[in-house]
Amino acid sequence: MSRIVYVNGAYLPEAEATISVFDRGFLFADAVYEVTTVLGGKLIDFHAHMARLDRSLSELDLTAPASHDDLLAIHRELVTRNGVDEGLIYMQVTRGAADRDFLFPAKVTPPSLVLFTQAMALRDKPAARTGIRVASVPDLRWGRRDIKTVQLLYPSMAKMEAVRQGADDAWLVEDGVVTEGTSNNAHIVTAGGTLITRNLSHAILHGITRAAVLRLAADSGLTIEERPFTLDEAKAAREAFVTSASSFVMPVISIDGMAIGDGTPGPVAQRLREIYIEEADRTAI
Amino acid sequence: MSRIVYVNGAYLPEAEATISVFDRGFLFADAVYEVTTVLGGKLIDFHAHMARLDRSLSELDLTAPASHDDLLAIHRELVTRNGVDEGLIYMQVTRGAADRDFLFPAKVTPPSLVLFTQAMALRDKPAARTGIRVASVPDLRWGRRDIKTVQLLYPSMAKMEAVRQGADDAWLVEDGVVTEGTSNNAHIVTAGGTLITRNLSHAILHGITRAAVLRLAADSGLTIEERPFTLDEAKAAREAFVTSASSFVMPVISIDGMAIGDGTPGPVAQRLREIYIEEADRTAI
Repeated sequence: MSRIVYVNGAYLPEAEATISVFDRGFLFADAVYEVTTVLGGKLIDFHAHMARLDRSLSELDLTAPASHDDLLAIHRELVTRNGVDEGLIYMQVTRGAADRDFLFPAKVTPPSLVLFTQAMALRDKPAARTGIRVASVPDLRWGRRDIKTVQLLYPSMAKMEAVRQGADDAWLVEDGVVTEGTSNNAHIVTAGGTLITRNLSHAILHGITRAAVLRLAADSGLTIEERPFTLDEAKAAREAFVTSASSFVMPVISIDGMAIGDGTPGPVAQRLREIYIEEADRTAI
Repeated sequence: MSRIVYVNGAYLPEAEATISVFDRGFLFADAVYEVTTVLGGKLIDFHAHMARLDRSLSELDLTAPASHDDLLAIHRELVTRNGVDEGLIYMQVTRGAADRDFLFPAKVTPPSLVLFTQAMALRDKPAARTGIRVASVPDLRWGRRDIKTVQLLYPSMAKMEAVRQGADDAWLVEDGVVTEGTSNNAHIVTAGGTLITRNLSHAILHGITRAAVLRLAADSGLTIEERPFTLDEAKAAREAFVTSASSFVMPVISIDGMAIGDGTPGPVAQRLREIYIEEADRTAI
């Protein structure tokens, strides 16, 4: 590993990429993030990520670290410097460094801005051909999952628990209904062919890939219902899949060990993955 | 400011006290902490803090960064190097630095250990004489507040909201009952003189000062009930107060603008504060 990482104005070798221990991202999880996909050296849905970043910043009264144009330039510079053809760019904005206090520091405190790349195969993931198995885990996260904060300990714990149970990832369940995956949105397809996905609220992340896939699904004539669905409904579904910036559309073949449909990736998920990647290639900047 | 800060084996000027941007404390809030009080240059309830740290580490499958003896030595070295007579020592343990992944890194990944001091007057706080005003705010935190993680964004937001409403701090309310303050445990004294405090569970932090004060209250003959109490019950109480390592016992004189008792610090809270400080002075190490 010898990536070049961006930290507060500087491009640094990753071993030198550090932040103050007084940074509120470190002490209070007082920080938000975005993960943007790189395909063929270009950025997918960049402007949608910027719009969601602005919303996260606004909800938390955080100061924007730079203009969208400047952030785009940093993303592109990191793609170039690290020679990334396919992978992710992680960007985190914090409330900056200040002496530890539950009260926010003065508004003049400069926010911290950190970006790094993760090169990885995304287009041809083996899991997209085999599908993934999920385990249901109680959703114990805070009440504002619509804000993309770094309070990710519980999703991390839930994924570890799923793996412990022999699955690949967790679906989080609250009051009997599925909220979402640990780092992706959850969807099912009923026996009748309707795509059901949790409606937007404070309960789930407003996924950028979720929005793109729903748009493409509607364009291709699928009926879509945005509403909560139960774990039992999911287990009885014809298909299940997740969406995220890193997994695009990923078929789910079992939930808690129970096969979904015939236990192989379903045609709706496979078709949506294809058209999502086509659209991504076509619109990448 | 020119503190000496401890970071992973080194004593550094605070401007040089940094951690990797890949530290899971920064990227996932995958970290726990303790705050120990310093009075007269000595540590209050150090062993109880270590016991709680061990519990937090165990609940999250985190690796202990050092032995209790070594951690005590670091605490004392920081007290000496920074000439702290009165104040706090903050200690944070994270799962260490690793490439970003929701799955925990290999167990061999060394945990990160950060400690710093905050010199401040604790014994003679003006607020202890005047009391503080609290505002009720919905408790939107995650489901495991008994683990002392750095997922502190919401408590921080709640304190900001309380201040916006003209109060000094927030009491968090869930299903009509008070859980705790933003960084302290909440207690009330009924018209009949009974001390009521929320019972231990996943819903609240297992406060070290809470435990010490309850022990002293029992020794002094007070009747104690450990159970959930409603916001209405709190507003009708004869007294209210909070406990924490930094505030000891702090009287609450109003809740949502409604005076508690006669609107001045109550005798039970004042007496408990006195005997807590006596005990702390006597047992500090």
